[in-house]
Amino acid sequence: MQLTGYNYIAGETSAEGAETFFSVNPRSKETADLPFHNATAAEVARAVEAAEAAFTEIRDYSSEKIADFLDEIAEQIEALGDELLDCADRETGLGLPRLTGERERTTGQFRAFGSFLREGSYLRPIINSEQPGQPSIRQMQFPVGPVAIFAASNFPFAFAVAGGDTASALAAGCPVVVKAHPGHPATSEMFAQAFNAAVAAGGFPAGTFSMLQGNGIDVGQWLVAHDGIEAVGFTGSLRGGRAIYDAAASRPRPVPVYAEMGSVNPVVITGAALAQRADDIAEGLVASITMGTGQFCTNPGLILLQDSPAAQDFIADVTAKMSVAPAGVLLNETIARGLEGTVGRTVANPEISVLTGGEAIADSDYFCFSNTVMQTTAAAIRADDRLQVEHFGPVTLFVVCEDGADLSATVDALEGNLTSTIHAESDELGDIGDLLHQLREKAGRVIWNGFPTGVAVVQAMQHGGPYPATTAPGTTSVGMNAIYRFMRPIAFQNVPDALLPDPLKDANPLGIMRLVDDVYTDGRL
Amino acid sequence: MQLTGYNYIAGETSAEGAETFFSVNPRSKETADLPFHNATAAEVARAVEAAEAAFTEIRDYSSEKIADFLDEIAEQIEALGDELLDCADRETGLGLPRLTGERERTTGQFRAFGSFLREGSYLRPIINSEQPGQPSIRQMQFPVGPVAIFAASNFPFAFAVAGGDTASALAAGCPVVVKAHPGHPATSEMFAQAFNAAVAAGGFPAGTFSMLQGNGIDVGQWLVAHDGIEAVGFTGSLRGGRAIYDAAASRPRPVPVYAEMGSVNPVVITGAALAQRADDIAEGLVASITMGTGQFCTNPGLILLQDSPAAQDFIADVTAKMSVAPAGVLLNETIARGLEGTVGRTVANPEISVLTGGEAIADSDYFCFSNTVMQTTAAAIRADDRLQVEHFGPVTLFVVCEDGADLSATVDALEGNLTSTIHAESDELGDIGDLLHQLREKAGRVIWNGFPTGVAVVQAMQHGGPYPATTAPGTTSVGMNAIYRFMRPIAFQNVPDALLPDPLKDANPLGIMRLVDDVYTDGRL
Repeated sequence: MQLTGYNYIAGETSAEGAETFFSVNPRSKETADLPFHNATAAEVARAVEAAEAAFTEIRDYSSEKIADFLDEIAEQIEALGDELLDCADRETGLGLPRLTGERERTTGQFRAFGSFLREGSYLRPIINSEQPGQPSIRQMQFPVGPVAIFAASNFPFAFAVAGGDTASALAAGCPVVVKAHPGHPATSEMFAQAFNAAVAAGGFPAGTFSMLQGNGIDVGQWLVAHDGIEAVGFTGSLRGGRAIYDAAASRPRPVPVYAEMGSVNPVVITGAALAQRADDIAEGLVASITMGTGQFCTNPGLILLQDSPAAQDFIADVTAKMSVAPAGVLLNETIARGLEGTVGRTVANPEISVLTGGEAIADSDYFCFSNTVMQTTAAAIRADDRLQVEHFGPVTLFVVCEDGADLSATVDALEGNLTSTIHAESDELGDIGDLLHQLREKAGRVIWNGFPTGVAVVQAMQHGGPYPATTAPGTTSVGMNAIYRFMRPIAFQNVPDALLPDPLKDANPLGIMRLVDDVYTDGRL
Repeated sequence: MQLTGYNYIAGETSAEGAETFFSVNPRSKETADLPFHNATAAEVARAVEAAEAAFTEIRDYSSEKIADFLDEIAEQIEALGDELLDCADRETGLGLPRLTGERERTTGQFRAFGSFLREGSYLRPIINSEQPGQPSIRQMQFPVGPVAIFAASNFPFAFAVAGGDTASALAAGCPVVVKAHPGHPATSEMFAQAFNAAVAAGGFPAGTFSMLQGNGIDVGQWLVAHDGIEAVGFTGSLRGGRAIYDAAASRPRPVPVYAEMGSVNPVVITGAALAQRADDIAEGLVASITMGTGQFCTNPGLILLQDSPAAQDFIADVTAKMSVAPAGVLLNETIARGLEGTVGRTVANPEISVLTGGEAIADSDYFCFSNTVMQTTAAAIRADDRLQVEHFGPVTLFVVCEDGADLSATVDALEGNLTSTIHAESDELGDIGDLLHQLREKAGRVIWNGFPTGVAVVQAMQHGGPYPATTAPGTTSVGMNAIYRFMRPIAFQNVPDALLPDPLKDANPLGIMRLVDDVYTDGRL
């Protein structure tokens, strides 16, 4: 496949800007030859205006037509072949096994949304028929309009140009303008070519998909500030997400930002769990902390337990395992430097003890950071919110609590997270309920005797949580319900049957489940 | 009933502040004797902290217990008797027939949420059972925590202290801190006493409900800025709503604001509709514009039609009817002054012709403004967004379009609205589809051959719309779905059955409808 280094705007390549950047191989720190062109303000505007024009057509496409398009995208991604895997591996160092699995998840997401659309009830049709003194009111979900998507660095497939945010926005019937992540621009361009092929094959308007390159903050700020954007999906850092959120909130016409900004994912381990399963938990924990070199938003970054000889042994065991684990490849220099900064600030706190790691590895041939285990007290973390910062990499912090009350007070002081985890024994059930309730308030997903990494793409999944994990705790960025971030209900009052959308017509021509006069039915009115 | 003029904080009256204000009768402009005390920053903090404490209990109450509480609130409101109607009439001038109907709607909302909760499926339980390689994941909706509610002036019952925002937040399981509207402080205090009685009767923690008085912006700003508030409901002006939105968005930990900020509610009338039903439409329109002295967020403030002799006759007919209609009582001096400001700025635009009214009524004994009809061109409104401002009162603006293309371009240039309306004939159906699609994008509810005032409280109702109608177009502030503004999904992974909330247990002890492995069922797992 021929790569250009250009932006992809409504089916055309474009490179009007003079600023360029390069792809870097994190395993060798070598810079590739092809320059990638930062989009200009005019290019950003052109992409959004093309999306607005496309929306006037797409907004009336049937669920079936959109589902076919999603399937076509999955096929076009597969048609990129192993070249996609090799390219992403060169740009991210994530390795072929992981990338092979991630590609399957990515195409699976498009196909799952296709099935979801064909079933039809996702439109949530609600009908109240005409009654004496009350008109006929019928509502369903409609796409909101052009959506801006910000790709993440750590999932070059599943949370990037062709990730879940893009899949759910397109499934909703919204054109997308994706800001690619500068960590993997060539991979992004390959996806853009797949999207262009799918747009052409599906007969969709060219403005349905655009992709902008950029290695600074300008492109994203221009994109979010454009009045044509109706909603924003973002996966990345707290700092980046908050900047996008602030930009959208300060627009003359503010729009919602669905930002998933990472998490420290607290793990509580009881004394009984340690007594029964210390070795298994230590092994699982180290695997979870170092998986993908710790570059998961669900990485367990904070481990809370009550002080005891067993707890000290456990911490020593985890520390030993972490210290002998090989230092993994980090995605890029920005993440390596970021770890130096965040870990550096944390270890500068006098209440922090470094048990292993805690610093950069000098003279390394690849981007990396030492596997790091730190320890502090419950009182210290309650006294300083900065100790709850995410260290995006193979880093964790033990919080040693004096007793149950100290633990409980500390859980209450936690900020919002994507997940919270508890390791306990079933004979503790009576005592553990309150703690589980506390952990529930701090996260979008509560895990029992497991580890937070690994997010099943199923209907019941909730990938979200209170700020700073996300800016919209009522929504999810994984699973089918992610579509509702990009839809809104519209009600029709006394509109003649012939003018209603099919899902709301008397005859229910699509045969989908509807709430009619407060009763669920797939029949006609 | 004895009124105090105090704030109601977690069951106790409190009046620590020195600043006071008074209730004013809009029919006589007379000020009542009782001083109402603006809440202080310390009182605001106390109310929020009590709500936070209450939440640690309420969050685990059953739907049944909350439903009983909602019924109890309805009964306590009814127990206030006709004294409530008289009090509200003295403070708002809305008249006993309207207030009697509004009280019924208000108690009806609490009871409707009660039924909604007892049915149980509102919790949206979703279960994916354990499969090879995939853990058990189960999610349902949970309350977000303490909610701040801002009462509106124009519905002293249905959108105020005991309005739909409060009802939906309490139904969700969230404690509420209500900022009362200074236009009807005595009415607000009567409701606070009813809530206190219901809290005591239901055995709910005192912090479940607090009500703060205030006639400036400070109380609201303190309330929204408090870190204990997890979500905000607001009904009122664009200026007020945007200030609250901005305050919440700029918090260190931002939270969602669900602000309903009014609308101009465009009405399109086709030539065929005029030819068939000009008299009926004129009569209905004038009734809708003057109903409640035009003080509805669904008031038809913008009427678009194509130029023709029939259109000129229609405009003249509406103008004549408006000019002879009696000038109604406005709620308060702020609204009267507001109309002088907004209408004054609009008529200062050289593209605006005043057909009747357009100014204050000198030497009136009561708060009022002349019934006002204005006219402009489609080109003028496209050229100046300020002509889309809401004139909150008995005011409408005709937009005369040259032809269909001029009309279509103008509809495309409309801002977001709560409603959009079209009057057309059924033999126009073929031509009208595109216009209907355009109107759909501009509103939360599309009305055919009707008028936007009158909002049925049914499941299919959507009371919302794109900014500036609201800050959250995906949500509604009327109808049962309003509850989801104040809930968020939480997923449980591999949590033992005994520790799961009842709606997620294997046995489905509540017998509610659940989505189990992608199939709806009310059976057990």
